[in-house]
Amino acid sequence: MSPSASSESENGSYAKSKLNSVNRYRGRGQYEYQQVYPIFDETPVVHVAFQTSPDQDNFGFPVILPMLGCTGIFGQEDVTEDEDDGRRYIYLHGYVSARIMRLSKAGTNDEPSGIPVCVSATLMDGIVLALTPNHHSCNYRSAVAFGHAQVVEDEAERLYAMELITNNLVPERWQHTRYPNKTELKSTGILRVEIHSASAKVRTGSTGEAKEDIADEEMRRNVWAGVVPTRTVYGTPMPAPTNLFPGVPGYLEDWIRERNETSLQYTLDAGAASK
Amino acid sequence: MSPSASSESENGSYAKSKLNSVNRYRGRGQYEYQQVYPIFDETPVVHVAFQTSPDQDNFGFPVILPMLGCTGIFGQEDVTEDEDDGRRYIYLHGYVSARIMRLSKAGTNDEPSGIPVCVSATLMDGIVLALTPNHHSCNYRSAVAFGHAQVVEDEAERLYAMELITNNLVPERWQHTRYPNKTELKSTGILRVEIHSASAKVRTGSTGEAKEDIADEEMRRNVWAGVVPTRTVYGTPMPAPTNLFPGVPGYLEDWIRERNETSLQYTLDAGAASK
Repeated sequence: MSPSASSESENGSYAKSKLNSVNRYRGRGQYEYQQVYPIFDETPVVHVAFQTSPDQDNFGFPVILPMLGCTGIFGQEDVTEDEDDGRRYIYLHGYVSARIMRLSKAGTNDEPSGIPVCVSATLMDGIVLALTPNHHSCNYRSAVAFGHAQVVEDEAERLYAMELITNNLVPERWQHTRYPNKTELKSTGILRVEIHSASAKVRTGSTGEAKEDIADEEMRRNVWAGVVPTRTVYGTPMPAPTNLFPGVPGYLEDWIRERNETSLQYTLDAGAASK
Repeated sequence: MSPSASSESENGSYAKSKLNSVNRYRGRGQYEYQQVYPIFDETPVVHVAFQTSPDQDNFGFPVILPMLGCTGIFGQEDVTEDEDDGRRYIYLHGYVSARIMRLSKAGTNDEPSGIPVCVSATLMDGIVLALTPNHHSCNYRSAVAFGHAQVVEDEAERLYAMELITNNLVPERWQHTRYPNKTELKSTGILRVEIHSASAKVRTGSTGEAKEDIADEEMRRNVWAGVVPTRTVYGTPMPAPTNLFPGVPGYLEDWIRERNETSLQYTLDAGAASK
């Protein structure tokens, strides 16, 4: 929507700048939309930081809130859902009373840019145990986005985002629930982050060792080196005491199975990848 | 160490203030050290936010870095390891070249307070699927700490923190690896966050439904309601191509088994807890 934002991008990727550039292990940096967005969407919880004013209450500390959210493209008429390389927003779900919602609201009309935030998403894929602690690492996919957050006021966009976030948590969930009433719709706050800059950082592979360590076979026989794959597992659904639905719905069962298989396979591939 | 910090605490807990108070769902707020610290220590990755200066490069965005770290008590002579209710620091592991390390270093002597940061840790324990999307929620344990981060220069404290962080990732790992040499020890940056204020927020239980929804049995027969327990699983260790250690060491195998059993049990208890 904002020309200033899209001027930062080129060819389906975010332009590198001091803000989003990966400096340590440059090879792990990724800037294409399709490398960045799936990380935000796969992480159930993202972390959102904003700066408080340095008054007596907040002492100028930044604040991080864990929030539910995902990427979306509402209102970008030149981009269709099929064009997967389109530039997106990040939509966040919260409560209208929450601090970040109040702050974002402050500048809606005269300063449409909202408040500057950082959104971070991290998927932990493995613990990399090298021969010496200082070469220990993790396999991970992490993404970071810098942008301005605004409270969404438009009813159509709010509804779009609620459905998007619900179905990002559990696919097809929205259409299998009771449709929310007016009061419920009003009580849910939606933030839209217009992404100014973003990047991803990904590590895969087994241990990276120093030459001297590889030469030391005696030591290598005494220290186990390798990867402990790590993943989020969705378990067996536990019906609520009030549940009357017989069994577990197919869309839920299928998603849990596929999701668990996909992440298991990813972490095994990541742990076996060549360094 | 700093009297100003400890004056904020009382009886093994953090004093409530505007900064750390849980406002939405107050009942979920926790302020005791022993409610807050385990969440930081159980999360393999914490998220650390700091504020950039509003120059041409950073545009005043806050920055979030995913980092390895945990709580520790080095140098607090009045607290022993056995006194589990003692006030702690958060130690973070990074690279000396990283941006936050450079920023934290700026004020080491004249301004020993370092830079203000927020450290956030979130454990996702379940997706709570209510009858209507707006009552959806998550079971989680999240903690947030506000404090000043400083680069640790003292060699003894640096070593303490490296061992602490390594063994927090995998218990007993430090003593089962090759001891780092001088160059390796120097290349690892350690940040200490002196916690000014902190709190935790925890949700357990099944769905919370509106009275009108409970009364609507027809709808309840059509919408599945309940909890999908969610946990981090540590998988089967994958030896590195260079590994010469026979099999998998006991400390690693035992930890993975115990850790997976504990988190499975926690998420099942959380999903079954009464609201």
